[in-house]
Amino acid sequence: MRSNIAKTASTARGELSFLWAHDHMGIISKIKEKYMSRQPLAGYKLGFCLHITKETAVLLMAAKDLGARITACSANPLSTQDDVAAFLSNQGISIYAWQGQNEKEFNECLRKVISSDPQILTDDGAELHVRANSLRRKGIIGGTEETTTGITRLRALQIKKGLIYPVVGVNDAPTKYLFDNRFGTGQSTLDGLMRATGILVAGKRVVVCGYGWVGKGVATRARGMGGIVTITEIDPIKALEACMDGYDVKRLADVADSGDIFITCTGQTNVIRKEHIVKMKPGVILANTGHFDVEIDVKYLYEQDTNPLPVRENVDAFYIQDRKIYLVCKGRVINLVSGEGHPPEVMSLSFANQIFSILFIAKYHDKLRNRLYKVPNHVNNTVARYCIEAMKIKLDSLTRIQKAYKNSV
Amino acid sequence: MRSNIAKTASTARGELSFLWAHDHMGIISKIKEKYMSRQPLAGYKLGFCLHITKETAVLLMAAKDLGARITACSANPLSTQDDVAAFLSNQGISIYAWQGQNEKEFNECLRKVISSDPQILTDDGAELHVRANSLRRKGIIGGTEETTTGITRLRALQIKKGLIYPVVGVNDAPTKYLFDNRFGTGQSTLDGLMRATGILVAGKRVVVCGYGWVGKGVATRARGMGGIVTITEIDPIKALEACMDGYDVKRLADVADSGDIFITCTGQTNVIRKEHIVKMKPGVILANTGHFDVEIDVKYLYEQDTNPLPVRENVDAFYIQDRKIYLVCKGRVINLVSGEGHPPEVMSLSFANQIFSILFIAKYHDKLRNRLYKVPNHVNNTVARYCIEAMKIKLDSLTRIQKAYKNSV
Amino acid sequence: MRSNIAKTASTARGELSFLWAHDHMGIISKIKEKYMSRQPLAGYKLGFCLHITKETAVLLMAAKDLGARITACSANPLSTQDDVAAFLSNQGISIYAWQGQNEKEFNECLRKVISSDPQILTDDGAELHVRANSLRRKGIIGGTEETTTGITRLRALQIKKGLIYPVVGVNDAPTKYLFDNRFGTGQSTLDGLMRATGILVAGKRVVVCGYGWVGKGVATRARGMGGIVTITEIDPIKALEACMDGYDVKRLADVADSGDIFITCTGQTNVIRKEHIVKMKPGVILANTGHFDVEIDVKYLYEQDTNPLPVRENVDAFYIQDRKIYLVCKGRVINLVSGEGHPPEVMSLSFANQIFSILFIAKYHDKLRNRLYKVPNHVNNTVARYCIEAMKIKLDSLTRIQKAYKNSV
Amino acid sequence: MRSNIAKTASTARGELSFLWAHDHMGIISKIKEKYMSRQPLAGYKLGFCLHITKETAVLLMAAKDLGARITACSANPLSTQDDVAAFLSNQGISIYAWQGQNEKEFNECLRKVISSDPQILTDDGAELHVRANSLRRKGIIGGTEETTTGITRLRALQIKKGLIYPVVGVNDAPTKYLFDNRFGTGQSTLDGLMRATGILVAGKRVVVCGYGWVGKGVATRARGMGGIVTITEIDPIKALEACMDGYDVKRLADVADSGDIFITCTGQTNVIRKEHIVKMKPGVILANTGHFDVEIDVKYLYEQDTNPLPVRENVDAFYIQDRKIYLVCKGRVINLVSGEGHPPEVMSLSFANQIFSILFIAKYHDKLRNRLYKVPNHVNNTVARYCIEAMKIKLDSLTRIQKAYKNSV
Repeated sequence: MRSNIAKTASTARGELSFLWAHDHMGIISKIKEKYMSRQPLAGYKLGFCLHITKETAVLLMAAKDLGARITACSANPLSTQDDVAAFLSNQGISIYAWQGQNEKEFNECLRKVISSDPQILTDDGAELHVRANSLRRKGIIGGTEETTTGITRLRALQIKKGLIYPVVGVNDAPTKYLFDNRFGTGQSTLDGLMRATGILVAGKRVVVCGYGWVGKGVATRARGMGGIVTITEIDPIKALEACMDGYDVKRLADVADSGDIFITCTGQTNVIRKEHIVKMKPGVILANTGHFDVEIDVKYLYEQDTNPLPVRENVDAFYIQDRKIYLVCKGRVINLVSGEGHPPEVMSLSFANQIFSILFIAKYHDKLRNRLYKVPNHVNNTVARYCIEAMKIKLDSLTRIQKAYKNSV
Repeated sequence: MRSNIAKTASTARGELSFLWAHDHMGIISKIKEKYMSRQPLAGYKLGFCLHITKETAVLLMAAKDLGARITACSANPLSTQDDVAAFLSNQGISIYAWQGQNEKEFNECLRKVISSDPQILTDDGAELHVRANSLRRKGIIGGTEETTTGITRLRALQIKKGLIYPVVGVNDAPTKYLFDNRFGTGQSTLDGLMRATGILVAGKRVVVCGYGWVGKGVATRARGMGGIVTITEIDPIKALEACMDGYDVKRLADVADSGDIFITCTGQTNVIRKEHIVKMKPGVILANTGHFDVEIDVKYLYEQDTNPLPVRENVDAFYIQDRKIYLVCKGRVINLVSGEGHPPEVMSLSFANQIFSILFIAKYHDKLRNRLYKVPNHVNNTVARYCIEAMKIKLDSLTRIQKAYKNSV
Repeated sequence: MRSNIAKTASTARGELSFLWAHDHMGIISKIKEKYMSRQPLAGYKLGFCLHITKETAVLLMAAKDLGARITACSANPLSTQDDVAAFLSNQGISIYAWQGQNEKEFNECLRKVISSDPQILTDDGAELHVRANSLRRKGIIGGTEETTTGITRLRALQIKKGLIYPVVGVNDAPTKYLFDNRFGTGQSTLDGLMRATGILVAGKRVVVCGYGWVGKGVATRARGMGGIVTITEIDPIKALEACMDGYDVKRLADVADSGDIFITCTGQTNVIRKEHIVKMKPGVILANTGHFDVEIDVKYLYEQDTNPLPVRENVDAFYIQDRKIYLVCKGRVINLVSGEGHPPEVMSLSFANQIFSILFIAKYHDKLRNRLYKVPNHVNNTVARYCIEAMKIKLDSLTRIQKAYKNSV
Repeated sequence: MRSNIAKTASTARGELSFLWAHDHMGIISKIKEKYMSRQPLAGYKLGFCLHITKETAVLLMAAKDLGARITACSANPLSTQDDVAAFLSNQGISIYAWQGQNEKEFNECLRKVISSDPQILTDDGAELHVRANSLRRKGIIGGTEETTTGITRLRALQIKKGLIYPVVGVNDAPTKYLFDNRFGTGQSTLDGLMRATGILVAGKRVVVCGYGWVGKGVATRARGMGGIVTITEIDPIKALEACMDGYDVKRLADVADSGDIFITCTGQTNVIRKEHIVKMKPGVILANTGHFDVEIDVKYLYEQDTNPLPVRENVDAFYIQDRKIYLVCKGRVINLVSGEGHPPEVMSLSFANQIFSILFIAKYHDKLRNRLYKVPNHVNNTVARYCIEAMKIKLDSLTRIQKAYKNSV
């Protein structure tokens, strides 16, 4: 079925974005396909606070298709794609979000969602949960939370005053953390680097700081593009793993003078700093793919050259001691600023966990206690299974004899 | 030294582009550094017909720095970057090129270059050479040619009427063909694919049609991004090599129904056609990275759906038999249309061959005959050696004993 | 210092084996170096039940060098390397082990160790622990256990009758399980395959059954040798990971007719069975690298051909329906039967955990309860750190600011 | 059909070896299958001088099956596998070869082959050709030659006195040189290293000296086993290629102190020498996979330690300045001494070229001149095509339109 696009141009563009994401989030289609006829969310009002992107549109439209009425706002004043918001609004979803809100507007939108009488709240950063809890808001039967930050806030809340409804923390599901950082950030970081710089990766000495999931992903993809990859680490177990994976492992100070490209993926602060920068080669490229823009000591760079040259859209050249130091995306997270963040396939794993968690709450809320829950194992397995099915991959299954063997061990 | 950018905004942007390319074309700097003081091109007037891009700017400025006076036009009516042209013009290079010329204008510009009394002509496609030869133009002591097409035309000319000056064919230098297609096109094709689609490559079944240098490069990078790569070939030796490199090799008809992404790199026509397309999965992505837009049967697609949906900037969705078929960049060369073509590092190898060939002509023209020459071996080795030096890589050298051993074998 | 080898030929050969292993187990040397002067095991009598191999010799000699008196027997009647036993005996370690013991002898040797009045028991399979516990043997202050099987038995014991001393289960330490299966079994399986068959892996379709740690390791190495790898799985999360790692994932039944080499790594029974074998190509190779020889239905093969042809030392050809099916190592664990099992570097991680666990018991036994303990985190980190140091790899360390940042999050 | 093995034990073992090789040389079977009925070698007497191995047995048996009568001797006094010779003899092939001949015996065997009145001679090193030519032997209609050395000798002969029959030089066929060194030596070198040392390759710093076909193959496989690979080179183009392939490229002197394993693949002499060895780490491993044992300065090692310790079957430990330096296979070609040389699949490409070249001579000898010929292109393509077919790989073929397009370019 081909949608009838009349509407405004913006709505139309939003629909195109939605369609593209939809086509690459096969799990969500699968879920709709299996549950649509039962309308398991019929009669439910849901409140969402998420980044209003094409992928989120797929989640919201799926929830709507399963019967829910939906009100949504944005998890960040700057992250809304207006076209997508227009499309969603046109589809009958109450959207309180636009690009470039001020703080007052942002807060007002959050209030709108809470005052829409939602029964289940899906949140990114616990903005809704914190407000709903502090208001002791009635009628909410449960919630879900997308991020680590949100879970931390909820945990604090739980200890201090108790939660007023059960919340499922989606972030820790293996189908999220095993894929998200490694494959999502891994690809989009290299993608962002190539968009920002257009340089050849093959033959370049790429120094990846940190060998957690993100570092693993970035290192794999940098090598996959022909880079000569070195890892820096503080943790001996991760260092050992990097080494066994065939990477040179060194101290940052010891590769500062030979690296061509440095990418920080540590979650720490002040990783690349003066003592390293002064040793670097002319023309070195510095990029960060960690969440916060603190991993490269950008302040130091600006102290040395107050007026860097914007050589390309996302590249600034600092002249320091007669050498050019290139900073990509001002040290902010490269895969989002220069690329498009996580590809839809990666978001589909996360959002499938969201839908199933919402269904879980809808079904079991009266059996749950008012506390934080992990995504149940069976949900996580179902997400993986649906994903496998959406990718048309067929698995083996245990024979009767194998089941018996398994139980005998 | 930091350049003083007053000038117009366009000139300034052109200079930034030039600077960025310059910093990633270390061989050219190296050549300038070694030859500058001798001014080996002093007194020479050079004529160029090349795509006026940031990389070409680096070549022209280097020739200028070695003493030459320069006139240049564009090798294609659509390929000029106006900012770069403005910058070059501002630097005292006579530029006859702008984006979007009509045929008359294009020809007029070629004439301008030829009538500037050049002694050496550097060409891309033999546009200048054909004209200069048919005019039996006086005063030209030699030329160089960048492309296969140009060399083919020159060869025909040589057979029919003889050339009026010697021409060095740069295209066949190992430092060009060993790196250009494999590493340049390899990376920029994947880059172009990610820019156009934003999808996750990991876990996708990528079918690469053709396992020549381009196919090898694309396959390596597609695998490097986590793709599950299958190769199609018509040549048994290349097929065998693909297989030994660990790729599944199949007939296109046999993978048509399982591939997620198809990339043609064959140099042939009509590679992906009706018989394949009708078998394909909904949501399949078709892209071409061959020079001409004939590898995918785009005509068939438009016959089936006269009004495809432009889902993203470089992606059109055709609805054929209830399935969506996504065509990237309308079947035109993806790495140029959706990406930035060859990275500067790759162009620097090609252009280093150009400079050395120009110097070779300047020095030896009276000893050369009026025919096509290959890039001399020593030039090719020098290019490689300068590149290695620019990358700060150190090589071993033969000991006295080893030299003797080598000669004894 | 070069050792003075007089002794018997066997002892000498044992010493050579020991020296070779010693040189590739740098962590153990590191531990000796740091602790030798303190003699932390002085006055302790240790009892060991391990496979008496060159790597175990390194462990026992290290324990001796740290001051212990040692009695040891073999964990398996068939696994003793007699040369190594001779060498250890010659070095003053009481060894009750030889190749090819019968059951009575094997049990007698276990008894000898227990009756040597050991204070700490290090075991592989809980043979010593079960006996010592059932005898309510006095004087034992603690123990360690190498294997999953042993830990399972100890857990059962703990539930039924309680343990009479604390036991550290070494098997679950990340420095063991993160490296052991993936890198140890990964390499030695391919090594075993090449020794057994001598065939070219490049271009072969290798089907790896199971994508746990072992499967991951085998797949990585098979691809590393140029194989075209397909994975079979029953678990959707592992299947998804395999797919994102760039492997084709299929049902065994669906690749049975195209695979050239099948390697089982599942821990399950009856994985490759009649329904698959009847579809296979002539000349197919079947190998197992799982612990037990139940993964390939060897019984079925012998029913079809009671007299297979021993084509090479570790390869038997079964003629079934006019096709040859090659079975490697009779379906027994290929990396041990045709190769040398885990390389010494891998064993050194495991045995470093053993030594530190023994030291932990020696130091803290009066503070421990009589139950199973995990390897303490600090021990595990120390093992990794020593390994990194032995490999001469340098790590970064947190700055003061970073420590503060870490605590603030 | 299952062969009836009575005969002697040696013959039986030889047959098993033959059968194993036969099953992995599918091209040869394919050739037999297609040509057997025509008996194109009926009436021909062939003389062979090759290493009498299981793979050669497959070649000889195929020639016999195509109708030829055969006499064969060995190309080297030490390379005959006696079991295989016994088997061949038992099959009616006249074999003059055994393990451990003295020079007189070796020469006598060559004479036997020549005096058997052969019409076509297939040679490895030109031993037969040189003798037949110097004797101006009658009745020979042509020959083939396997090696570079042989071709060099024949070329000298051709210049000096002219050849008395045409010879096809098999060595330069792309189906030989594109696969042989890279995939054959690549795998067997790593295989040989693991058999000789049993150490873990993952995480080791492997220095590969030389990046020709062999170096490329060894580097690919060393990385494939998890090694951290550095390349040394003297040629800037090869160095550049190594770099673009993602390898660190350094001078040997600059990695001498950090490498764990050094593998020479240069074809040069005295590559690893005193100045490097004195810098090396204790426990370093030195191996050579070049043809001659001159790449490592073994003489220097023996001068420093006249009595090295044979730590393992193919590993000697030299004590030099208190460090152990391990030399593998005494510096001789590791893949042959510690492994099994080229796998049969690789030899099958070479021997298919041999058979087709013999058929070519049989068919066209009266049209050929008495000089050296290359393997004709169509033969080479046929070899590749048969190989592809034997591997059950299907290729695409040009459509009518594509053929026209190809010709139009």
